[in-house]
Amino acid sequence: MATLTYLTTTHFDFGALETLPKMLAQEGITKPLIATDAGLVAAGVVQTVLDAIGPDFEPLVYDGTPGNPTEEAVKDALKLYTENGCDGIVALGGGSSMDLGKAVGLLAVSGGPLEQYDPLVGGAKRIKGVAPLIAVPTTSGTGSEVSIGFVIILEDGRKMTFASPHFIPKVAICDPELTMGLPAGMTAATGMDAITHCIEAFLTPQVNPPAEGIALDGLRRGWEYLPRAVKDGSDRDARWHMMMCSTEGALAFVKGLGAVHAMSHAAGRIRRLNPHHGTLNAVFLPAVLRFNQDVCEDKYVRLREAIGLPPGADLAEAVEGMNARIAIPSGLAAMGIEESDIPEMVEYAQQDLAARSNPRRASAQDYEAMIRSSL
Amino acid sequence: MATLTYLTTTHFDFGALETLPKMLAQEGITKPLIATDAGLVAAGVVQTVLDAIGPDFEPLVYDGTPGNPTEEAVKDALKLYTENGCDGIVALGGGSSMDLGKAVGLLAVSGGPLEQYDPLVGGAKRIKGVAPLIAVPTTSGTGSEVSIGFVIILEDGRKMTFASPHFIPKVAICDPELTMGLPAGMTAATGMDAITHCIEAFLTPQVNPPAEGIALDGLRRGWEYLPRAVKDGSDRDARWHMMMCSTEGALAFVKGLGAVHAMSHAAGRIRRLNPHHGTLNAVFLPAVLRFNQDVCEDKYVRLREAIGLPPGADLAEAVEGMNARIAIPSGLAAMGIEESDIPEMVEYAQQDLAARSNPRRASAQDYEAMIRSSL
Repeated sequence: MATLTYLTTTHFDFGALETLPKMLAQEGITKPLIATDAGLVAAGVVQTVLDAIGPDFEPLVYDGTPGNPTEEAVKDALKLYTENGCDGIVALGGGSSMDLGKAVGLLAVSGGPLEQYDPLVGGAKRIKGVAPLIAVPTTSGTGSEVSIGFVIILEDGRKMTFASPHFIPKVAICDPELTMGLPAGMTAATGMDAITHCIEAFLTPQVNPPAEGIALDGLRRGWEYLPRAVKDGSDRDARWHMMMCSTEGALAFVKGLGAVHAMSHAAGRIRRLNPHHGTLNAVFLPAVLRFNQDVCEDKYVRLREAIGLPPGADLAEAVEGMNARIAIPSGLAAMGIEESDIPEMVEYAQQDLAARSNPRRASAQDYEAMIRSSL
Repeated sequence: MATLTYLTTTHFDFGALETLPKMLAQEGITKPLIATDAGLVAAGVVQTVLDAIGPDFEPLVYDGTPGNPTEEAVKDALKLYTENGCDGIVALGGGSSMDLGKAVGLLAVSGGPLEQYDPLVGGAKRIKGVAPLIAVPTTSGTGSEVSIGFVIILEDGRKMTFASPHFIPKVAICDPELTMGLPAGMTAATGMDAITHCIEAFLTPQVNPPAEGIALDGLRRGWEYLPRAVKDGSDRDARWHMMMCSTEGALAFVKGLGAVHAMSHAAGRIRRLNPHHGTLNAVFLPAVLRFNQDVCEDKYVRLREAIGLPPGADLAEAVEGMNARIAIPSGLAAMGIEESDIPEMVEYAQQDLAARSNPRRASAQDYEAMIRSSL
């Protein structure tokens, strides 16, 4: 098994779940809250994890995490955590469950309300601490198991990104076995989330060459193995490499993200649709690659090289080809997004944390044009 | 200025030295021992650093670090540290000073003798702690400012590699300004050390894709900028990129190193010559690339790509070409190593920690053949 020691100690391989009781003991957790969702209970994954935890701990399960987690759900889970004297968190699931777990861990130690920690108004300074958290991803996309961030829809409707080194999990247990049952559609959507992380993180202008090296390794891997994982979910090699792509994407986006994420966060707020974050990223990526092209020529050379395109090939077209190959919806309209949603999306995209690190500054008109071309 | 937060918080850019007083305060150091060498005192670099530290601290200078640091020197520096009540270390210099500083920091907290910490006999478990250490490199090669290791020649003549996460500096201050005065020969030798780190770390079989991504980014950078830095030491861009290559090489070799380092450590023990570690790496690298070739075909494709070679090109020849271009000595004989040195070198190379992570297991005969072909 590979043990990657960056800021999160990551146990990575088939069978890594077996390390969970040892890691709970190491982190001093006796009564973990397992932050997860109902789908993983139904699929038997939660039981698998409870079995792995064994008899020496007193886990409690919160399974109410919605796709795109909400402040209401965070409060419900926090109540369970405090009323039962939990002393740590196992964040089990995709990005939604891991993000919810991070939010609960923050509020349990530093107190509410959540919005005071908004990094756009210096909220990171108010963090007093977080509860120990072990992240166990069940999808290969978000990389939240090693990332500095989490995203919650607040009660007032804002979709807020929180970011601080405090939110980097102490331990990640990346066991590709837990992703073997992921359906093709979800494999494709989460996989494109990971690929988008690698690309956007690589393109942000912040100086961090190690993160760029990690991003390109992740991109190369994701581009090769995502079609295999989508085509045959039982392809263990493909599942391993997609999970690594996901982890690398999040290690890389310590650099920041860009306009794809700004628009995906804006669209992710549309509650009547609750659209999948990874699918949104896949759909927005070609437009942003076209928008950024003129200011990123040197970096595009290396992106092409990583995914095996000939010099000068059109990156945006290559992503469109990948999207088609893995049956990502053809555009926002196919996801239910309408003309009338555009003004609010434009407004929120401009305000999003990720908008600040896009390599080319985008105006309201630019965002509108990118959204329209992604319809 | 770039701040890279991996395990070491690295402040990286021209002018980064200005952060030193703030970092001393952050680490709770009031009376730092500056572990350095006489050359840096003579060159005025130590005074520059003392000026940067300012009046709020009581630094002491140990300037007796030899090239290839010895246990005797470590003891001398430790005596100065303890007798003066120092509470932390600024390790200022190339690999020798940084490694000596790490050894002093270990002994100051965990006690001597050094050899008990030999990782080949489980010595890492005996580490009780280390003194806080801020690394300030003045060469671009070793990467010791972010590495888990240090190397000391023990009093009994063994050249011992110590490795533990404890030895990763808390803070690195990488200011390329401090390398501007490095002569061409030393720029070449240290630069090839960094390039060798990137290549050997990439080739070791341990599973750590993020480290491999970092290694390739560092290699690409070093290959492009080393000839420029050697040709014109005042080329600030080249100095910046070589320092980054060096940092990336050491971030990568958390994976391990290989036969090049095993032989360089063996040859570095020859006290009548005290040969430069980076020069030795440069000289041994072609032979090891030829030796490993058959078991590393996939990885050689990516190495060629990183340095801009056409598919199928001979990597070893490319390194020989680089060595010639930057005036690295033509072989071991030109460095004063003789036939009669070979048996002991073979013996030590096989026992070296780095030998364990070479992608192809090398016998005594293999080491002898590689050394002879490097003469």
